[in-house]
Amino acid sequence: MVENKIITATLGIDVGGTDVKFAVIDNGEIVCRSKIPSNRESVEGILQEICDECKKIAELHPYGKVGVGVPGVIYDGLLSTDNLPFKDTPIVEEMEKRLGLQVTAENDANCAALGEVRYGGGKAYKNAVVLTLGTGVGGGVIVNGEIVRGRGGAGELGHMVIQAENGLLCACGRKGCLEQYASTRALVRQATEAAKENTDSILGSICKENGELNGKLFFEAIHKNCPVAEAVFDRYLDWLSIGIKNFQMIFDPEVFLLAGGVTKEGDNFLKPLLAKLDGKINVKIAELQSDAGVFGAASL
Amino acid sequence: MVENKIITATLGIDVGGTDVKFAVIDNGEIVCRSKIPSNRESVEGILQEICDECKKIAELHPYGKVGVGVPGVIYDGLLSTDNLPFKDTPIVEEMEKRLGLQVTAENDANCAALGEVRYGGGKAYKNAVVLTLGTGVGGGVIVNGEIVRGRGGAGELGHMVIQAENGLLCACGRKGCLEQYASTRALVRQATEAAKENTDSILGSICKENGELNGKLFFEAIHKNCPVAEAVFDRYLDWLSIGIKNFQMIFDPEVFLLAGGVTKEGDNFLKPLLAKLDGKINVKIAELQSDAGVFGAASL
Repeated sequence: MVENKIITATLGIDVGGTDVKFAVIDNGEIVCRSKIPSNRESVEGILQEICDECKKIAELHPYGKVGVGVPGVIYDGLLSTDNLPFKDTPIVEEMEKRLGLQVTAENDANCAALGEVRYGGGKAYKNAVVLTLGTGVGGGVIVNGEIVRGRGGAGELGHMVIQAENGLLCACGRKGCLEQYASTRALVRQATEAAKENTDSILGSICKENGELNGKLFFEAIHKNCPVAEAVFDRYLDWLSIGIKNFQMIFDPEVFLLAGGVTKEGDNFLKPLLAKLDGKINVKIAELQSDAGVFGAASL
Repeated sequence: MVENKIITATLGIDVGGTDVKFAVIDNGEIVCRSKIPSNRESVEGILQEICDECKKIAELHPYGKVGVGVPGVIYDGLLSTDNLPFKDTPIVEEMEKRLGLQVTAENDANCAALGEVRYGGGKAYKNAVVLTLGTGVGGGVIVNGEIVRGRGGAGELGHMVIQAENGLLCACGRKGCLEQYASTRALVRQATEAAKENTDSILGSICKENGELNGKLFFEAIHKNCPVAEAVFDRYLDWLSIGIKNFQMIFDPEVFLLAGGVTKEGDNFLKPLLAKLDGKINVKIAELQSDAGVFGAASL
């Protein structure tokens, strides 16, 4: 009798602007991982390099399906990405042709949200809002266990306008987008402004000493109980909580999962945020952080 | 041989603050309808009157299941409603006990959204955002053909804050909620303010003649090309389009369906709104309007 070995492992790929990350996931665990630099020159180049790596990985750890998270928007199967050469690229078709396996593609932020809900801090939940507070505010929403994707472009949570009049100009062209107030970058900008206005504060000295601020340096000032930094942080949390309350009204999710720079502070970040929110809103820090993308892609 | 007649009809009930509407729906058509005043005195009273009416209807048109749309929030099967006596009422359990049939309950705005998508202007779509521009801004979101309900309180689209700083105070306690800017009531308020500041305008005269303004009188001024009314309308549409664009970013739905007072103006309302929006956003006026609730309830 021939043994029919069923392959339960899947390959998750997270295509970023700098690196492409690969992970074979079996029974909810990463059993193999690798990384290649993103080819930013040509569609043919990046596709070929990704597929070559897939084939190498298959020799080490066979997998039955492939899921790929990609920056940008997929409409009708065609992927376009601002900072990679994809332009109306039929990504799934091209990869299936090269790999001879079933391939599924999804926006990277949505993949990360799905990964976090299926394998990370949201495992117990079917309805979750994931917010990544980084350079911008990325996000993804899971309703009944599935990504909200609409026609392909859903989940742009950072581009919800919360200050229509006199709002800060966003790169997207609108004014007052959440990410101009609640991203880690926005916090650093707010802190830098305050440091320059208060040069004799602890925050001001830290900024002067280091030439500029970043998230880590900002929290140094917080740990030293700098009142200027505390006032900046309080205001920042007000903005973030306005965004969270909006999503609460829209989705009433079982959990909010927050990822990205500022969340690395753990309870120093979470506790004062929770104090701004209604006790009925359940907020946690994401567990998988930068692995969420490959997990989500593998589970597509 | 005994004939086993399969009952395909369902009863939809739309419980409002003033009336309770009933409709038996079979094959997507209303085959029987009735209405009773809402008993605002006691839970026992309103439940008994609703169930008595259900039984009377069953004698005329048998139905196999019951769906009920109720104002307020249902958490863990318990309904609480501000302007009706329900308070932690196990609505489904109570009705099933009295009727001996399967009963399903859902928030009324979500029911209306579902009805509009399944039987009205959204029939061709699986992903839709429904906005009712009335006294407030009500709404409901359909993702993959199902209501987004979260833990039971989702779809409060009118309480998305779009003006966090210097926003108008909302009845919910927050500042800058969409419904303070984009409801039909908000339009009338904005028009009344402008009429009082411009007493010699057409809008000003209409307001003075009638003692006060309403939506219909406001559009009379628009039809007479009153520049003051046109400026108010333009500003109103700016606010509304900010809300629509936010939901576009979050849901990227196939269609937006707008209902309520101001939408009765048809193309006079829709065309200038579309001019404010990206051509990729598909906006339509809802078809079922006040029947959406019973249709949605029947389809639960």
